[in-house]
Amino acid sequence: MQYSAEELSELLNGMVEGDPTVAVSSFSKIEEGRPGTISFLANPKYAHYIYGSKASIILVEHDFIPQEPVKATLIKVDNPYVAFATLLDIYSKSFRKKTGIDKTAILGANVKTGTDIFIGANVVIGDNVTIGDKCQIAANTTIGDNVNIGNSSEIFSGVHIYHSCEIGDSVTIHSGVVIGADGFGFAPQQNDEFKKVAQIGNVIIEDHVEIGANTTIDRATLGSTIIRKGVKLDNLIQVAHNVEIGENTVIASQTGISGSCKIGANCMIGGQVGFAGHLKIGNNVRIAAQAGIGNNVKDNEVIMGSPAFYAGDYKKSYVFFRRLPQLVKRLEKLEEKDKNKS
Amino acid sequence: MQYSAEELSELLNGMVEGDPTVAVSSFSKIEEGRPGTISFLANPKYAHYIYGSKASIILVEHDFIPQEPVKATLIKVDNPYVAFATLLDIYSKSFRKKTGIDKTAILGANVKTGTDIFIGANVVIGDNVTIGDKCQIAANTTIGDNVNIGNSSEIFSGVHIYHSCEIGDSVTIHSGVVIGADGFGFAPQQNDEFKKVAQIGNVIIEDHVEIGANTTIDRATLGSTIIRKGVKLDNLIQVAHNVEIGENTVIASQTGISGSCKIGANCMIGGQVGFAGHLKIGNNVRIAAQAGIGNNVKDNEVIMGSPAFYAGDYKKSYVFFRRLPQLVKRLEKLEEKDKNKS
Amino acid sequence: MQYSAEELSELLNGMVEGDPTVAVSSFSKIEEGRPGTISFLANPKYAHYIYGSKASIILVEHDFIPQEPVKATLIKVDNPYVAFATLLDIYSKSFRKKTGIDKTAILGANVKTGTDIFIGANVVIGDNVTIGDKCQIAANTTIGDNVNIGNSSEIFSGVHIYHSCEIGDSVTIHSGVVIGADGFGFAPQQNDEFKKVAQIGNVIIEDHVEIGANTTIDRATLGSTIIRKGVKLDNLIQVAHNVEIGENTVIASQTGISGSCKIGANCMIGGQVGFAGHLKIGNNVRIAAQAGIGNNVKDNEVIMGSPAFYAGDYKKSYVFFRRLPQLVKRLEKLEEKDKNKS
Repeated sequence: MQYSAEELSELLNGMVEGDPTVAVSSFSKIEEGRPGTISFLANPKYAHYIYGSKASIILVEHDFIPQEPVKATLIKVDNPYVAFATLLDIYSKSFRKKTGIDKTAILGANVKTGTDIFIGANVVIGDNVTIGDKCQIAANTTIGDNVNIGNSSEIFSGVHIYHSCEIGDSVTIHSGVVIGADGFGFAPQQNDEFKKVAQIGNVIIEDHVEIGANTTIDRATLGSTIIRKGVKLDNLIQVAHNVEIGENTVIASQTGISGSCKIGANCMIGGQVGFAGHLKIGNNVRIAAQAGIGNNVKDNEVIMGSPAFYAGDYKKSYVFFRRLPQLVKRLEKLEEKDKNKS
Repeated sequence: MQYSAEELSELLNGMVEGDPTVAVSSFSKIEEGRPGTISFLANPKYAHYIYGSKASIILVEHDFIPQEPVKATLIKVDNPYVAFATLLDIYSKSFRKKTGIDKTAILGANVKTGTDIFIGANVVIGDNVTIGDKCQIAANTTIGDNVNIGNSSEIFSGVHIYHSCEIGDSVTIHSGVVIGADGFGFAPQQNDEFKKVAQIGNVIIEDHVEIGANTTIDRATLGSTIIRKGVKLDNLIQVAHNVEIGENTVIASQTGISGSCKIGANCMIGGQVGFAGHLKIGNNVRIAAQAGIGNNVKDNEVIMGSPAFYAGDYKKSYVFFRRLPQLVKRLEKLEEKDKNKS
Repeated sequence: MQYSAEELSELLNGMVEGDPTVAVSSFSKIEEGRPGTISFLANPKYAHYIYGSKASIILVEHDFIPQEPVKATLIKVDNPYVAFATLLDIYSKSFRKKTGIDKTAILGANVKTGTDIFIGANVVIGDNVTIGDKCQIAANTTIGDNVNIGNSSEIFSGVHIYHSCEIGDSVTIHSGVVIGADGFGFAPQQNDEFKKVAQIGNVIIEDHVEIGANTTIDRATLGSTIIRKGVKLDNLIQVAHNVEIGENTVIASQTGISGSCKIGANCMIGGQVGFAGHLKIGNNVRIAAQAGIGNNVKDNEVIMGSPAFYAGDYKKSYVFFRRLPQLVKRLEKLEEKDKNKS
């Protein structure tokens, strides 16, 4: 299928600059632009690629002013990345989704399924499960008893959801995710052994959450582990029992959140960050990758390091950490002089 | 089902303070206590919640003395957390376990199964496997040839156990765990390529071990990777080939243990800790989250940092790391004075 | 099966020192050597074990000169570790591989399978998939539409490969690996929500790659995430969208590589390392465990720390970090003296 610059501009509410009849049928990155494709410029660091790019159409911001002639037709839009994402979305949704329940899928007693759903081969679903309209559940996935899944959610192959968990609408769960495994709770006993604390709570995943491959979200001891609306979790993240993650917070890969942490809304948390247990993290907090969080964090803070503190200060301290050998020499020189004087 | 304070007190070998006839049918956290539930107070930080709590019964320590009137009936016990765990355990075991072998489970040649077991849908079991009494093996799990599993072990859905591994009694293995994958062994060759070293050992999991979701435990090159009795492993932990973890050691999420490490008994190891290969870690060692362990560690040490050293010293050094910019200013001031003098 | 020292020496192109008729049927580590087994000495730290070892044959380097009498027969070879690996390989390949397609495997439309392959129970394969000769695909694995797999590749149980990914020859993929899940791409919107960026690229795994258990490799937004020939990835590693990893690079467990990083050839990267996005890492780079990489790295660098810099310098700085409390005391002493003087 082909789209002209004019058609795309209309779709994206943009403004064409250049030949409006030029047409594209695929996508490319600006640094690898090929004829017949559309590309985009969002990061100014990539601006120099636009002059040599062979892409036929390039999405740019409204205030973009070329410093040299550009061969491509430009479409000026409010946010080129979002506009490009819109087109990718339309493209990826143009593939027909699978529907129907595979004959090898195994559904327990009293399973309610909505319309227009797909359940793949060897999917195993427990008793008293509800699956909303337009859900896609891929092969070899296991869903425990009493699980509820809303509408339009997509669960990839090899996902394991334990009993009694709640999944909202338009949730995406990638392969290997485990939702609702027992929280890590053990009571120490006098003989040095540990007694398991039964975990009788559940996990609630609200609407529009995306969960990356092999991420684990443990069920609560009591009550619920809660992932609020719009949260995006990358791969291999650990979310312990009774954690709550606020709306639209984004967390990068391999971060670990210990039990009973309450993380605010709209936070951006880097990869491999670790949170100690029972912390309260505010809204709009930004945390650098590999940080270690041992204390509560207020709204809007930007932190770094392990243990973490204000990122600006951390960077300053780290500059001097790198220079410690020279600083020690300077100290020694002063000591030497002092010794000679006395 | 309802239990009175009197009945529970008898069960827990406790002492009632307040109305012994008040009854509960569920559980709550002390900070969210609801009528008709039982709660507990273990952490003194939460003590202030007891005065406003609406829980009907609260478990407290024998020496707890209220500072204000408490509405709830108290049951005084030796260890409120352990007592609460006991009740949760009784509650969670009151649900009838599934039994039988699902008709879609695939058992290889010469598989011996004990009494009172459950094997779920699409479980695939290899040849010459032994499964003890009262084991529960959930859907979509794969068990290789020559695996032995003791009595009363529970394996959740989507677990993968490679051939020839040994699982003890009362072991709990959560979804996504991989036991017995090849250790990461490659011999460098002259052409910059690596030659795989075949891993012909196995993994031995002793009794009462719990293994969290998506944790991986590699088989030994030769001999066995061994997880001793009572060890508790959280989610997403990496245990490399030929590692041995001593009895009742507890390890938090996302920690990684390199090949041939020998970790002692009764250690408490935080999350995201990394161990270099071939280390010997003593008994009763405590390691803070995110530590990096590059050397052997003696019994009873408490360490922190990457590379890790004595935690008390690490904290002191870190205080001055935070103050480095000010310290450098003080150094510069002395240098300035010195310069002016000379 | 038994092999004499003479036979093994011929096989390994070595030189026997001692009784050439002594025979072995199994393997042991030098520190645990048992009669009837062959062992090896590669690491000089283990040299002292050779004098007491009960192994019947021990592989050593050509220039090894015993300091005391050795009971075992020695076979001198160029590289004892590689020679031992060769024998382990022969041993492990002596077990008959399974062949055939299990009757419970589900193959989509237009699946082409080579000769001499094994497809295990409950494997689910999509449409238009090609599987080369001598491939082994174990139980409960899922392979999406339009995937191509070369010859002699081995895929263990519970692997999930999304649609349109390419797997080369002689690739080994361990249980729980997820290949081709969506990259973590979300465009921020004005209402604080994030719009998913559809990921329409794929993953390419070249020949002789090994991928450890529960590692995740995301598909590219556009184009391909590429793992070059001979790369070895340990368990629980995260490889984000559009990453490229160069030939024969070896990466230890739990390392995370953010989007669009290009890592060179022949690198050795420790465990729990984190890479920020869009970095270019040269060839032959060595990175210590737990390092945090925030900038490009040139060929042959050896780095450490978070943020990482030259490892030699890091170690020096760290020595003084440990001594910071004493250094501050020395600074205070000078300040005190200075104060007294003025």
